[in-house]
Amino acid sequence: MEYEEPKFFHVMKYAEAADGDVVDMVSGNPDWEPPAALREALSEYATLPSTEFQYPPSEGLRELRESIAARRNVDVDRVVVTNGTGEANYLAMARAFERDAGSEALLMDPVYPYYPGKTELLGGEPTLVSTERDGSLDVDAVREAASEETALIVLNTPNNPTGAVYDIGSVREVVEVAEAVDALVVVDEVYDHFDFTGTFESALTLDSDRVIVTSGFSKSMAITGFRVGYAVLPNAHAFPAKARHMLVNVAGSRPAQYAVADALDATDADYYAEAREQLAERIDAFTAGLDEAGAAYTRPDGAFYVLARFDGFPGTMANVKRLIDEVGVAAMPGETFGTAREEWIRFALVTPRAVEAAERLAEYFE
Amino acid sequence: MEYEEPKFFHVMKYAEAADGDVVDMVSGNPDWEPPAALREALSEYATLPSTEFQYPPSEGLRELRESIAARRNVDVDRVVVTNGTGEANYLAMARAFERDAGSEALLMDPVYPYYPGKTELLGGEPTLVSTERDGSLDVDAVREAASEETALIVLNTPNNPTGAVYDIGSVREVVEVAEAVDALVVVDEVYDHFDFTGTFESALTLDSDRVIVTSGFSKSMAITGFRVGYAVLPNAHAFPAKARHMLVNVAGSRPAQYAVADALDATDADYYAEAREQLAERIDAFTAGLDEAGAAYTRPDGAFYVLARFDGFPGTMANVKRLIDEVGVAAMPGETFGTAREEWIRFALVTPRAVEAAERLAEYFE
Repeated sequence: MEYEEPKFFHVMKYAEAADGDVVDMVSGNPDWEPPAALREALSEYATLPSTEFQYPPSEGLRELRESIAARRNVDVDRVVVTNGTGEANYLAMARAFERDAGSEALLMDPVYPYYPGKTELLGGEPTLVSTERDGSLDVDAVREAASEETALIVLNTPNNPTGAVYDIGSVREVVEVAEAVDALVVVDEVYDHFDFTGTFESALTLDSDRVIVTSGFSKSMAITGFRVGYAVLPNAHAFPAKARHMLVNVAGSRPAQYAVADALDATDADYYAEAREQLAERIDAFTAGLDEAGAAYTRPDGAFYVLARFDGFPGTMANVKRLIDEVGVAAMPGETFGTAREEWIRFALVTPRAVEAAERLAEYFE
Repeated sequence: MEYEEPKFFHVMKYAEAADGDVVDMVSGNPDWEPPAALREALSEYATLPSTEFQYPPSEGLRELRESIAARRNVDVDRVVVTNGTGEANYLAMARAFERDAGSEALLMDPVYPYYPGKTELLGGEPTLVSTERDGSLDVDAVREAASEETALIVLNTPNNPTGAVYDIGSVREVVEVAEAVDALVVVDEVYDHFDFTGTFESALTLDSDRVIVTSGFSKSMAITGFRVGYAVLPNAHAFPAKARHMLVNVAGSRPAQYAVADALDATDADYYAEAREQLAERIDAFTAGLDEAGAAYTRPDGAFYVLARFDGFPGTMANVKRLIDEVGVAAMPGETFGTAREEWIRFALVTPRAVEAAERLAEYFE
């Protein structure tokens, strides 16, 4: 396979090297506080006997797996704790390909760039499938694209970059398509705590032996650097996924798992609600600025991002660099996310300076 | 590929379920204290601003990579920090296979079971190559086994399970064989701080563009659960290995990397020397017990393990279970480590109860 530098690194480096002040709206790093219990648990861990510093179970600390299983209402044997949602997606996608049931992955367009990257790493072939204008699933397009060659369908809801929250009925229909062509469906729900509509339902509620759900605590606990994620697999796929996890990583990092396990039990719903409300307020303020700038956009139903289109200013890398240099706002070019939003630019709202960025954009474009 | 439960889990579970008191000599978890600076750094990390809880650079924290590069006397661009030495080996072995230069891996017999497991995961075919009776490299056997099909040769020095420390001249000859058949050599040096002979030399001193060296802090800092390792790759292989690392894991866990980076700078040679001396004393005491038991063994030059052979008591899983039940000592069956030591049993000396175990064995076998 070919390797290239991910485009978000390219943008981040360019923004860092810029002369002027730049508002960073590139990456999806939460800018709010992790749960207080997480800091406390990590401090406590540092004082534990050194036996607690040795290998955790490969599949993850038991108490963490049990908390996840209870919250997800699944049997604990189906849960493997991973090095972030990234590894969970890698393990889940690998399961789809190693069944000798085809080598094609159907990925929704616009697409989170890691999905085609992982597909190619695993020897599969990505096919992009259009979504609706508002980012919602186009089940007919999925059905039309699916064939005997299809091993895998990847969904991400709430969605990066569109902000769409998929209707569970549509997800069910995609799972039915997968059954018809002997494919697995990986549903990445890492933004599940950031649903502004109150309508999000996990694909686990479908109770399908075709569905692997992945998620993690990077976004919900504002700890992208801790690398604690998980996959919930159907029974038939759990053991081989755990075996691959062991062969690749042996286990995940124990201090991080320990802190997350404690924080998961000790943190109440208010913590998550506050982060969500803060994001919703930023979206209001930022999209008000986009209105002033005369930009087109879809108000996100979930996740951290707003896709915007400025007339005569397509979402190319060159234009993103112009925004950095001339406006002082760093964002991601739409052309990074497949083919469906090449005219668009993605802004991550994980900065308190979102309003300032919107004002700069309004001034530049109006 | 086929998956099966690793045999060491099977032994550990059996030992845990045993009625009587059992000395655990199964796994390679150090039983001594990590560096004091490591605990301090982890406590400090827990109080840092939440920006420090977000994604580290995918290739690892800069200060950690620089410390590793300085100690290893290599350019920092060649270093990727991984989720333990396990991931470093996975990345290094993957590089060998993805060059379209054959699919065979030559693995030294006795073999650490993860190497054939990773080989098969990566679509390669493991071939076991005999080592000498004392565990040292049989370069002629490597030369004879090597062919155009050979993509990879894996060495581990100081060696698990034999305790051999490879002569650097022999390693150089293996690298020459690799050059002749267009193979890469992965040298796993995770036990580099546990050389009792003072003769160990890193394969990095060969300065070869065929050699990838892997290592980590699991053993040297007594933190197998933190998962901080690294690979040092030739320039041509560093970028693609980092790309795979990113696609599989995104990054390693930041609290663990932070603590290791601090401890690496703050910990002096005495810490490592004390752990080594304690192990050497245990080896003396344990092998004295083996002498009493009339067992054959090779005194290890490095690492944590002693291989012993008891007359009429081959290293089968059944016999290991008898030792657990009848002697109260849990160890690993030699048949787990390839074909060369099926008569032998591996004892890990990372317990203060090694002497007690030796007494029990002496009483049982004498």
